[in-house]
Parts: sequence; C-alpha cells; structure tokens
Amino acid sequence: MHPSPSSPTPQAADAVVIGAGPVGLFQVFQLGLQGIAAHLVDALPHVGGQCAELYPDKPIYDIPGIPVCTGQGLVELLQRQIAPFAPTLHLGQQVHTLAAQAEGRILLTTTAGTALLARSVFIAAGVGAFVPRAIKAEGVEALAPGQLLYHPDAATATRAATGKRVVVHGGDEAAVQAALDCVDAAAQVLLLHRRDAFQAAPALLAQLQALREAGRIQVVIGQITGVETAPDGTLQALALLDPQGQPQRQPLDLLLAYLGISPRLGPIADWGLAMDRKQLAVDTATFATSVPGIYAVGDINTYPGKRKLILCGFHEATLAAFAEAERQAGHKLPLEYTTSSERLQARLGVAPAR
Amino acid sequence: MHPSPSSPTPQAADAVVIGAGPVGLFQVFQLGLQGIAAHLVDALPHVGGQCAELYPDKPIYDIPGIPVCTGQGLVELLQRQIAPFAPTLHLGQQVHTLAAQAEGRILLTTTAGTALLARSVFIAAGVGAFVPRAIKAEGVEALAPGQLLYHPDAATATRAATGKRVVVHGGDEAAVQAALDCVDAAAQVLLLHRRDAFQAAPALLAQLQALREAGRIQVVIGQITGVETAPDGTLQALALLDPQGQPQRQPLDLLLAYLGISPRLGPIADWGLAMDRKQLAVDTATFATSVPGIYAVGDINTYPGKRKLILCGFHEATLAAFAEAERQAGHKLPLEYTTSSERLQARLGVAPAR
Repeated sequence: MHPSPSSPTPQAADAVVIGAGPVGLFQVFQLGLQGIAAHLVDALPHVGGQCAELYPDKPIYDIPGIPVCTGQGLVELLQRQIAPFAPTLHLGQQVHTLAAQAEGRILLTTTAGTALLARSVFIAAGVGAFVPRAIKAEGVEALAPGQLLYHPDAATATRAATGKRVVVHGGDEAAVQAALDCVDAAAQVLLLHRRDAFQAAPALLAQLQALREAGRIQVVIGQITGVETAPDGTLQALALLDPQGQPQRQPLDLLLAYLGISPRLGPIADWGLAMDRKQLAVDTATFATSVPGIYAVGDINTYPGKRKLILCGFHEATLAAFAEAERQAGHKLPLEYTTSSERLQARLGVAPAR
Repeated sequence: MHPSPSSPTPQAADAVVIGAGPVGLFQVFQLGLQGIAAHLVDALPHVGGQCAELYPDKPIYDIPGIPVCTGQGLVELLQRQIAPFAPTLHLGQQVHTLAAQAEGRILLTTTAGTALLARSVFIAAGVGAFVPRAIKAEGVEALAPGQLLYHPDAATATRAATGKRVVVHGGDEAAVQAALDCVDAAAQVLLLHRRDAFQAAPALLAQLQALREAGRIQVVIGQITGVETAPDGTLQALALLDPQGQPQRQPLDLLLAYLGISPRLGPIADWGLAMDRKQLAVDTATFATSVPGIYAVGDINTYPGKRKLILCGFHEATLAAFAEAERQAGHKLPLEYTTSSERLQARLGVAPAR
C-alpha cells in the first residue's frame, strides 16, 4: 500500500510503538537507551492502556521490586522513567493500516489521518485497541460528525452541548457525569438508559437526583432502535422502545454515548503478519514477527511458554530494542549497564555515577 | 552420588534456589505464588548477591517501573516483596555437589555440611559464588581451622583475636575496620598490606592513625611468601618479603585476611548440566537445563538473544516457576493475576481486592 495522492506526506520515524500500555511505555524506554527515538500511538486519549482503563485502582503485586502498586500507579512510574525519551504522541487514534514498503520501511496510517513511515514498528497492542462500544441501531453509522460523540471528555461534551437538546446515553459514572457537566450549557438534558438505575459515586447520584427533582435533567428509560434525520442530514429524533415494548420518539440535537470502552483486536489480523490463534507469532531471541523490522511484545504476541504478564512484556520489549538496534547498526552491540555506562547515563540525562 | 553413611539425613525441599541476588529473590516470589516453598542458598552471609556486593550504592535506571534505585535499594524492595514467602535461608555456604537421584529428586550438599533433597532446583548463581580471595603462599592451605579466617565479621574476629598476636592482612575498609575491632581484645595487632596506603572512610583512617601513633596498631608493609608452623601445627610466623625485597619473619597466633570477595563459577561445571561457554544452556519456554527439575535463571544461563540484565532474569524466573508448577501438577495451569485472583492474594497474605 502506498499513500494515495491526496494523503499527507508521511512523517519519518525511527520507531513506532503501537500501544501505550505499560509494555509500550517500557518499549519507548528501551529504544531510548539504544538511541532510537519513538512515536507512540494509542486508541485511548491517554497513556496507560488496560492498566489505566480496566484496573486503575486495583493493586498489582507481581511487578519485580514493587511490592504493591495500582494500575494507574505503575503507569505513572513508567511515565517518569521514560521522561528522558519523551515519545512523539499520537493519542486517541488507532493504527488502521500497516504495510511494509518496497524500500524496507513500514507505512502506517491511523484513524485520525496520521501517516508515519517507520524504520521499525513495535506492536504492544495488548488485547487490542480500547474503543468505545458503538450504538447498534439503524441510521447511526450515517450520522454526520458532531451529531453523535462517543465518550467525549467534559470540555468537549459541554462545548458541543451548548444551546442544544442533548441526550446522554449510558448508565455508568461517565454517563451520569456527562449529564451533570452539560446541564448548565444545554437547552435540555435527557439521560437515556435501559433501566432507572445508575452506577456512580453516591455524591454524583445525589446531584443527579436533585437535578431530576428540579426538572433540569430528565431520565428516559428505553433502547435506541433508530435515528431520524431531516433531508439535509440534521439529527431530529431517536426512535426508542420503552420498557413496555412500545415505540417512542425522542427529539434531540446531540447524542452523547457512554456505553463503555472495550478492547478490539481491530485490523492487526489484516497486516500480513504470521499469527497463531489471534496472537502475533514471534521469535524469542528478538521478538520479531514474520516481517523484518516489525516486533510484537506483551499480551499481543505468542511463543512457546508465553504467559500474559506485564513483567514478561518488559523482557520482550528489551530484547526487541536490542534486536532492532543491532539490525540498524548492522552488527552485534556490546551490552552496557545503566549503572556504569556513561553513554547510557548521558542518554538518560543523569550525572555519571561516581 | 548418595549421602555417605556419616552424612546427616538430607532435609526435604520442594524447591532450592541457589543464589540470593535479585533474580534468586524474585524466583522465591514466583515459586511462592505457585504455592511452592523454597530454600535459598548463598555463599555470602547476606542476601543481595552482586547487587549488594559490587554496587550497593550505585544507581540502576532500567528496572521497569523504578526510575532509579541503588543495588542495595533493589534488594530491600525485593526482600519486602518476598516477605510472604519467607524462604528457609542457608547463607554463608556454597552449594558444593548437586546430583540427580534415581527417584527423580536432586541431592545438594553445601560447604557448611547442609544436605537438601529437592524436588526442584533453580540455579540463579549469577557470575558464580562470591568467595573471599585466598592467600596464595606456601603452607597456607595446610593451616588448621581457626588459624586463618577469611573476612570474619566483627564479632567473630574479636572473639578469635582475644589475647592473641593478630595480623590483619588487607588494605581496604574491611581490613582497617577489623584491625580497629580487634585492638582492645588482642595482645597485639599488626596491619599487613603491600603498601602504606589504606582505602577507608576518613573517620576510620583517623582512628587508625591515632592508634598507630599510640603504638597500639603497627603497620607492616610486605607480601606473604609462606607460613611457619610448629611440629604440633601451631601457627608461629609469617614469612614476608619487605618493600626492599628482603625476607622478614613476623611472629603471630592468628591471621585475618581481607583481600576482597570475588565471584567464582565454582563447581557448577561439574554438575553434569549442558553448558555453552561457561553458561548453563536453557529452553526459553521453561528455562529448564538439560536435567528435568533443574532450572537456570539470570546471568548464569544462556539462550539465543540472551542479555545479562536483571529484568530479563525476572522474566526467566517467572516462566521457570510456571514450568515447575505444571511439572509437579502434571497438567497445564491457568494463568491467574495478582490483581484479581483470590487464591494468589491469599498466598500473598493480602485482603482480596474489591
């Protein structure tokens, strides 16, 4: 695949790391020690991956040398550790296409239109890209940009809601919070869920209740079956089924959906890399996939003895960085230690140890 | 090899970890998560291995999630982490013999006479056992126990020196400290070094200088060429060469040697395990050596892509623990996470995460 004439000129990159979970972050660190600067792409709008998304507050006990930390705590430690090698971030976008080029480079394009021409790619995509769960109903996919937003942050939601009739769809804390965030700016706020029960912190639920009693937020119980647009494409109404199974029509200008974020393997299977039951097959000496210059580390890969543990991904990222550094150098590189190597210490930006 | 009739009955052990460096300590942790209790053997009188012995105060930057720590700091973190799985310690002794037995167990004996009959052995011996550098001079090896002590601690040195004419041999802080430690108890203290220059903290050097000026410690410059014993074996004198190359005779009752601690691969090469250039060859799916139930992790092993990094040893120890747990169970074991598994959390002695 070559960029089409209308594509932007791709940015050149020594290394692209796909996935900003703990293993992707440590991949950036090990590449940095090898003198290789990295670009870092993630579908989420922030770094941390599964750790930050699925168990930010849960304890982890098996990271070597860290008797206990939370998922979010581990991510923050790794961010501090990779600070000397600040990667170029491409967040909130998923790598869509990846293809080896004739000249040995790898061309990547993302869902946000970013194009990168890389010497090497490190796929640290874990269980896949964390993407918002989509509304499955007639006409939803044809909505124009800005009529339906998935998991917008507070600022984006409030800005979009200004003066509008807004339906917030969802039942968890993110949905409740969004309804509260929009209530001052919007002309009208409805909170749509399949039942009248919301999962959120007690303080948020109390605020919701007070605003419901004041008539400023209305809760609607139902399931979306379709969307209705005007001939010019303007969003007009949702078609709903109410709890009695009766169709209802709900007028609106903007739909905000908070149905959760879940991982999708996505297009990785289409990239022409050898796979073994939905995992990328790798060589344990280098963690290279079947294509030179493309590596797979962490939960996305498989090899004999593989265990899906963060600490194993750290090892894999390390050997992959060495393998790529030697591939770029064209010869074996000696092992240096951060404790004693002035070169590594200079790269880390620390004073030489005495 | 079977225990001779005069050997003590060996202690039964589910697992013996040889080497108490960072990788050996984390091996104990991973075995503990698998429900396997470990014995831990090290030649040094304390845990920590190379990290604690060679670079206790130097910074390490590449332990994942730990932006910077010292060697000693890492050892302390790992000690806290393995606390729930407190191993049975056998310190200050080197594993001397290791042999697979007919019934599938492995018999180990140490230089202190400990005998262990193990279901599994994890060799995390790094660059070898850290042992005191020996005095190479005629007659030294024939000295009776108690006439020459290598690197005794302060209590042992003081007790042995009581009422004796003591020669402390060495030029670093350990030697200077030992001379100071013995000065009150001993009849006479001489500090013997190849030149009149000692490496120690300024406060210790000031104390040494004061005791030299008071005539309580005498510094002798020379090299030991031999020892002289009475017909009954009593140590009588050292034969020395002075800086002018002239032979000298120095009477004494006790010799304390502090010539440094250095790693020796030791008898590992004699244990019948497949080796590749002084390293133990392992399978990267299990980190097993050529003998079932015997694993090698950390700097002592080799495989394609091997890098002698602590973080790689952590991964190796983890897969080795899984492999042994499955070997003992006789079937595949599901992967559990410390974040979510109540069984692992019970083993760790922590409350279940909510």
